[in-house]
Amino acid sequence: MITQISPMGSLDLLSQLEVSKLKKAASSDLYQLYRSCSLAVLNSGSHTDNSEELLRQYESFEIEVMRRERGMKLELIDPPEHAFVDGTIIKGIQAHLFSVLRDIVFLHVQLADSQRLHLTDSAQITNLVFGILRNAKALHPGIEPNVVVCWGGHSINPVEYQYTREVGNELGLREMNICTGCGPGAMEGPMKGAAVGHAKQRYPYQRYIGLTEPSIIAAEPPNPIVNELIIMPDIEKRLEGFARMGHGIIIFPGGPGTAEELLYILGILMHPNNADQPLPLVLTGPKESEAYFRSIDQFIHDTLGPEAQKHYQIVIGDPARAARIIKDAMPKVKEHRKAHEDAYSFNWSLYIAPDFQAPFEPTHESMAALDLHLDQPAEKLAANLRKAFSGIVAGNVKSEGIREIKKYGPFIIDGDRSLMEKMDTLLGDFVEQQRMKLPGSEYVPCYRIAR
Amino acid sequence: MITQISPMGSLDLLSQLEVSKLKKAASSDLYQLYRSCSLAVLNSGSHTDNSEELLRQYESFEIEVMRRERGMKLELIDPPEHAFVDGTIIKGIQAHLFSVLRDIVFLHVQLADSQRLHLTDSAQITNLVFGILRNAKALHPGIEPNVVVCWGGHSINPVEYQYTREVGNELGLREMNICTGCGPGAMEGPMKGAAVGHAKQRYPYQRYIGLTEPSIIAAEPPNPIVNELIIMPDIEKRLEGFARMGHGIIIFPGGPGTAEELLYILGILMHPNNADQPLPLVLTGPKESEAYFRSIDQFIHDTLGPEAQKHYQIVIGDPARAARIIKDAMPKVKEHRKAHEDAYSFNWSLYIAPDFQAPFEPTHESMAALDLHLDQPAEKLAANLRKAFSGIVAGNVKSEGIREIKKYGPFIIDGDRSLMEKMDTLLGDFVEQQRMKLPGSEYVPCYRIAR
Amino acid sequence: MITQISPMGSLDLLSQLEVSKLKKAASSDLYQLYRSCSLAVLNSGSHTDNSEELLRQYESFEIEVMRRERGMKLELIDPPEHAFVDGTIIKGIQAHLFSVLRDIVFLHVQLADSQRLHLTDSAQITNLVFGILRNAKALHPGIEPNVVVCWGGHSINPVEYQYTREVGNELGLREMNICTGCGPGAMEGPMKGAAVGHAKQRYPYQRYIGLTEPSIIAAEPPNPIVNELIIMPDIEKRLEGFARMGHGIIIFPGGPGTAEELLYILGILMHPNNADQPLPLVLTGPKESEAYFRSIDQFIHDTLGPEAQKHYQIVIGDPARAARIIKDAMPKVKEHRKAHEDAYSFNWSLYIAPDFQAPFEPTHESMAALDLHLDQPAEKLAANLRKAFSGIVAGNVKSEGIREIKKYGPFIIDGDRSLMEKMDTLLGDFVEQQRMKLPGSEYVPCYRIAR
Amino acid sequence: MITQISPMGSLDLLSQLEVSKLKKAASSDLYQLYRSCSLAVLNSGSHTDNSEELLRQYESFEIEVMRRERGMKLELIDPPEHAFVDGTIIKGIQAHLFSVLRDIVFLHVQLADSQRLHLTDSAQITNLVFGILRNAKALHPGIEPNVVVCWGGHSINPVEYQYTREVGNELGLREMNICTGCGPGAMEGPMKGAAVGHAKQRYPYQRYIGLTEPSIIAAEPPNPIVNELIIMPDIEKRLEGFARMGHGIIIFPGGPGTAEELLYILGILMHPNNADQPLPLVLTGPKESEAYFRSIDQFIHDTLGPEAQKHYQIVIGDPARAARIIKDAMPKVKEHRKAHEDAYSFNWSLYIAPDFQAPFEPTHESMAALDLHLDQPAEKLAANLRKAFSGIVAGNVKSEGIREIKKYGPFIIDGDRSLMEKMDTLLGDFVEQQRMKLPGSEYVPCYRIAR
Repeated sequence: MITQISPMGSLDLLSQLEVSKLKKAASSDLYQLYRSCSLAVLNSGSHTDNSEELLRQYESFEIEVMRRERGMKLELIDPPEHAFVDGTIIKGIQAHLFSVLRDIVFLHVQLADSQRLHLTDSAQITNLVFGILRNAKALHPGIEPNVVVCWGGHSINPVEYQYTREVGNELGLREMNICTGCGPGAMEGPMKGAAVGHAKQRYPYQRYIGLTEPSIIAAEPPNPIVNELIIMPDIEKRLEGFARMGHGIIIFPGGPGTAEELLYILGILMHPNNADQPLPLVLTGPKESEAYFRSIDQFIHDTLGPEAQKHYQIVIGDPARAARIIKDAMPKVKEHRKAHEDAYSFNWSLYIAPDFQAPFEPTHESMAALDLHLDQPAEKLAANLRKAFSGIVAGNVKSEGIREIKKYGPFIIDGDRSLMEKMDTLLGDFVEQQRMKLPGSEYVPCYRIAR
Repeated sequence: MITQISPMGSLDLLSQLEVSKLKKAASSDLYQLYRSCSLAVLNSGSHTDNSEELLRQYESFEIEVMRRERGMKLELIDPPEHAFVDGTIIKGIQAHLFSVLRDIVFLHVQLADSQRLHLTDSAQITNLVFGILRNAKALHPGIEPNVVVCWGGHSINPVEYQYTREVGNELGLREMNICTGCGPGAMEGPMKGAAVGHAKQRYPYQRYIGLTEPSIIAAEPPNPIVNELIIMPDIEKRLEGFARMGHGIIIFPGGPGTAEELLYILGILMHPNNADQPLPLVLTGPKESEAYFRSIDQFIHDTLGPEAQKHYQIVIGDPARAARIIKDAMPKVKEHRKAHEDAYSFNWSLYIAPDFQAPFEPTHESMAALDLHLDQPAEKLAANLRKAFSGIVAGNVKSEGIREIKKYGPFIIDGDRSLMEKMDTLLGDFVEQQRMKLPGSEYVPCYRIAR
Repeated sequence: MITQISPMGSLDLLSQLEVSKLKKAASSDLYQLYRSCSLAVLNSGSHTDNSEELLRQYESFEIEVMRRERGMKLELIDPPEHAFVDGTIIKGIQAHLFSVLRDIVFLHVQLADSQRLHLTDSAQITNLVFGILRNAKALHPGIEPNVVVCWGGHSINPVEYQYTREVGNELGLREMNICTGCGPGAMEGPMKGAAVGHAKQRYPYQRYIGLTEPSIIAAEPPNPIVNELIIMPDIEKRLEGFARMGHGIIIFPGGPGTAEELLYILGILMHPNNADQPLPLVLTGPKESEAYFRSIDQFIHDTLGPEAQKHYQIVIGDPARAARIIKDAMPKVKEHRKAHEDAYSFNWSLYIAPDFQAPFEPTHESMAALDLHLDQPAEKLAANLRKAFSGIVAGNVKSEGIREIKKYGPFIIDGDRSLMEKMDTLLGDFVEQQRMKLPGSEYVPCYRIAR
Repeated sequence: MITQISPMGSLDLLSQLEVSKLKKAASSDLYQLYRSCSLAVLNSGSHTDNSEELLRQYESFEIEVMRRERGMKLELIDPPEHAFVDGTIIKGIQAHLFSVLRDIVFLHVQLADSQRLHLTDSAQITNLVFGILRNAKALHPGIEPNVVVCWGGHSINPVEYQYTREVGNELGLREMNICTGCGPGAMEGPMKGAAVGHAKQRYPYQRYIGLTEPSIIAAEPPNPIVNELIIMPDIEKRLEGFARMGHGIIIFPGGPGTAEELLYILGILMHPNNADQPLPLVLTGPKESEAYFRSIDQFIHDTLGPEAQKHYQIVIGDPARAARIIKDAMPKVKEHRKAHEDAYSFNWSLYIAPDFQAPFEPTHESMAALDLHLDQPAEKLAANLRKAFSGIVAGNVKSEGIREIKKYGPFIIDGDRSLMEKMDTLLGDFVEQQRMKLPGSEYVPCYRIAR
């Protein structure tokens, strides 16, 4: 099956040079990256943890950019059928396809090499994150703070899922917008809920922003509600995107990915440079998930200390309250931006230490080398723990990680005996609560805690 | 609690004379009508069968129209709290309040008496229905046929409700709009589903039209998705509104109200004048509701005959097929309008016999006097059966009807022995399946079949 | 030549009953009114004083309303060619055709007889003026005061014309909108100038409102800039429309029509009930026209007295100052509306005495009967003088008036000797300055001052 | 006087790095370029030939970019007063200021050095032209061909000016958009005329595109109608911009700049690669300017030959016909783009020889070195003649050129005796007709023909 797709959304013109760089023959790596992100997007709404499998299922899939009189077209060969209704592509997916194209062209074709590759300077990295978001038209100047980042597992139980919808509804009723990692579960629920809340309020500026990156997009394809899709180059840029776009953060139950996110933001908020940053942070879930939050809270207490706990509030079984905490903090966020002559749409003044910006590539070597001891500054420890959880996510659902584990066995995580015990307990809970992967398969750990 | 509400939606200017007519003192009846419709709207989303009870609960509620420099304002005294979020009225409800005002002012103040009261001429009645819809900006010239009327019970079970959402999703994916009676159950599900389908398609012209009338609005307040609310003067104008606005009709499981609607549309489609009218009519529900449709189908067969059965298709457990039947019929609808130089937005050429237009006021007398014999033309019988079911709806949920039944006991329905048996069976099924009223209360029949 | 025109602008749906009333056969008078207003609009941009001649030139012109699947169409038979470019009607004219239809249908078909004919009650008349403007969507609630009524002659010299453009430019630069009588000359210049000023300011809410009435529209067809055309039923309703919509008034040089307008507004502003009405009124023209304003000023002084002079400022040769006086008064206008809970878009609180509301039909009898003596209250005298000038306008350019004069000779205007002398002088000046009719023909006075 | 200006138009977000590059101290050259373009824009609407003088008049003017919570602001110190009305900047000028910023940031900050400087590869140059126009949002995919490039002198007489307005009106009535060099005279007239034509047609997509470059912007500041201002890096990129954006070209009377443009487009159209390019080219002016066109036509005949004459039509005194020729060619343009899968918005398939793309810097040396002999291919000769006229423009109105001439005397232009005679005649005519500079000063030639 061959079909042609017209542009939709924010990209509609490419130059001859740009088109030529995306040709299948031209640059195999770039084409492969483009092809696999596009395929992931065409699987929008489908649920799989295994991106390898997904790619295998559509081996004959190809995508080609063609210039045409009205701008350009995409030609799809053998695309997944569920992206179509009665033979016509679903428009949300159509728009996502062009978001993928936009971000890949921007990063790999339009930007000078010096501006995107091997950046080590902190200011340069932040500049790149800004550049990608601006190019995606994701930064709306003049709009008052209202972006709520929602983090949480892609694999959560129905009670938790329903709860995320209710929080979303309460946020929507308060005219807040949602930014998530763009997959299923806790990344979908708040958006669906907010869509209903927004509809009740006839809110016309609804944003359901999905921030993803090439290695995770196949495992967590954009849910159908996402109306702004942005592909960041790697997990660290993606996390920085969340941190600088969000005006408040809500964390729902989740697995190691969620733990990574919590450690990331705590490590940042605990840095002395950010002492006066008003960024409301709420951990919330239904009554049934109270134990989950208590054990996370305990882990934070035991590792980063009581100082870390001051940066968040835990709300159990009260969606309206969770939403109200975020909403009520917005005036403070606004005042802070004004006082620092900082943009509402991008938090330049938030300090992110280089340790949180530099890409961490989880290999058996790098995982084993992590400095996991309690006798280091809390924000340092947070950075290292963040990397450990990041590695586990990779081993669970990212194709590169899965390959590594297949070849060499589980990652070894080593460090302080007492810290290792705490990690083991937490990760054991995740396994037990089926937070590691989507239900339906037996979970084989991709890590081993050395103890 | 006193609060002032700004205009939203299609009405924002009233003259001094118009405002004066709505004052509490000025014309008690008009004010009472206005007040009770407004109160119903403020209960949007709440579920109750008992409008009397609702009114009693908010006895101190008052509403006043005030002219102001930016147009006008509404002042609400003691409104229901759930219409507000953190002290601010939900905008969808705000818009509905002004829809109520718009329709009441149009009908009772702006129209000349001769144009609205005691109309008996068929053309005049149709002209009034058109006038109300046009004034509500519900007729969009130039838009191709895409309005699907969805009928079905306000009290349906969760499996049926989920099914109505799925059909709605499939309609939304096909960029069809939804028009219902605007309450809960089968009037809400298709809208919610369509909202998701529309979001996937980024469809910008989403219409969730609720057609109601003063005597039913309290029992079936507009659900939160409705974005166009229109208050027709009575049930017959409302049914004519559905028939002339809709380009296709889907009937979900329901009780006597749904039976009334089916009989109404069959009586019209069977009229020789409408022989060439292409109006797709689908009866659909989940696998679990198959028996329901079989018994309805049997009842139609036994009363109106096999000719009547040709006007609809029954689709069981296949939401996509139900949607596709409607969608696929649109070109025919369009062609027919073109060939007859008829508007896409209002079906002038559909013939509605005076018997279906004249208001039927169900009293013990009028119910007993219904001509329920099998030896009359099918469309005549349909008209009379329609009235019988209409009376039962009134006795079940309309305040006037409830009062009548309280005073004088159940309506007596009399006619052909064999017809009476069939009705008794059908109604018995409705009772058993809890289709008469919202679950939670024992149903006491408001009718008695004479046999 | 036969051509079909699609709807454009604010009217696009008519009912069967409404269409039938506009048929050529149905009601000869209504059709003739409709036909002649439509013909005038099709002559948009053309310059003629003689509506009779215009009508004669296009005797075979016919217009018919037809209902169609996308709403409706107009069929034109033998329309003036200059309304078309390469065979396609100019869209501005297309929109005007539907404005004519909208206002005629509203007034003659939709309104109950009792609401529009033979109104004598002051509140009812104002209600009708409001109703017509609202139906034409000319009242925009929520917009802050910015409508400047510009009055002045349709026959002015090039220096004066250029000056009106410059004032328009200065108003446009200050984001003020323009409302005029919608013909050429001083009714066109300010609009053209404002269009440039608005363009410089990228002002998106540009309004060039033309208020006209059936007896004047042929002589003063809407200029090409008018983007809102409204046909009021008669000159008095039109004047009331100006008075209640305008937030400030500028008077340029002109003839008897302009004198009528000045007397009208002075008569109103001088009424004790309007003592606190902030309505800035500026008389302005180029240096070359200073003498004109001095003689008008003298006439006002001599007839209505120095009190009247306090209500206006004369600005000579300073377009920016004229615009600034109006602009600077807007906060006061706004405050007054707020304080009186009056609409920004319609000045309900302005008192207009019945004498200024009742239609004056100029005949030889009524003209002769005018009470033109100096010993009456100033506002009474203003009302009577207003009528005298109104009669002269009719005799000059309105077809009914022209017919009268042709039959019975000039109107006789009689009254106080000294007043008559002043009028004679003023009118003599108008004749001499070619302000009576468009240049090119010898002016034969339609009046005779009895002295 | 210090004032702060909010963003308007297509640029509203800059990164910290970008802002720092524009600081006064940071990079003196870039700041000077930015400052002088901004100053030129603030003189929008003023008429001067002498950019030196302009800069001298506002020596204390400074501009600074500042990041703010709602995006950013510009701070202006001592800006020209006529850019303001009652203390507020005119919005059109405000938008232009941000267009300048957008184009300078794009070219000098965002683009990698390799992509913008010292480009010699033809494809790379075209890619840059495309990139600048796309970044300016000047390429609208999906819009059918309707951009008319209008060339002609900034110094034309009132009869010619009025004629350019009439042609503009006829183009506007046909819903064509205008692209010019953005200064006064023949660059302003067609835009003003089209604005009226567009208004009559209620045409909502009006584009008045001004393409300029840093060395000419001061002498030809954007007229008040321009609503899209684009600053190309040099004259050759600007000419390529015209050639690839335009769907038709109209040439009005003008001086050496207009001759440069005519030679440029003829040189391109005569190239064999462009044999099938449908690009309508009309030379038009009022009756009074007929002689002008005859002498241009003769010059073309005598230099490039009769083949060249086939590429244009001369229309004298018939604005509607000029517009109709362009309009009627649009279907062919459209078909050609479709057949070649080329964009409507950017003519990729037009071949522009490297000779026409390489920047020509007019110095005494380069001017003297021009190969001006008749025995070379016509398109080569066109290229060289184009450079000769380009040098004269520089000597007349560009600050660098004026400085050169002041220092070293007039440019010497040498070549074929007979060719030199023809050039001398043509240039002599330009001098005589006051087409060299704005009237009011004696013209001292900046060139000398060697003969």
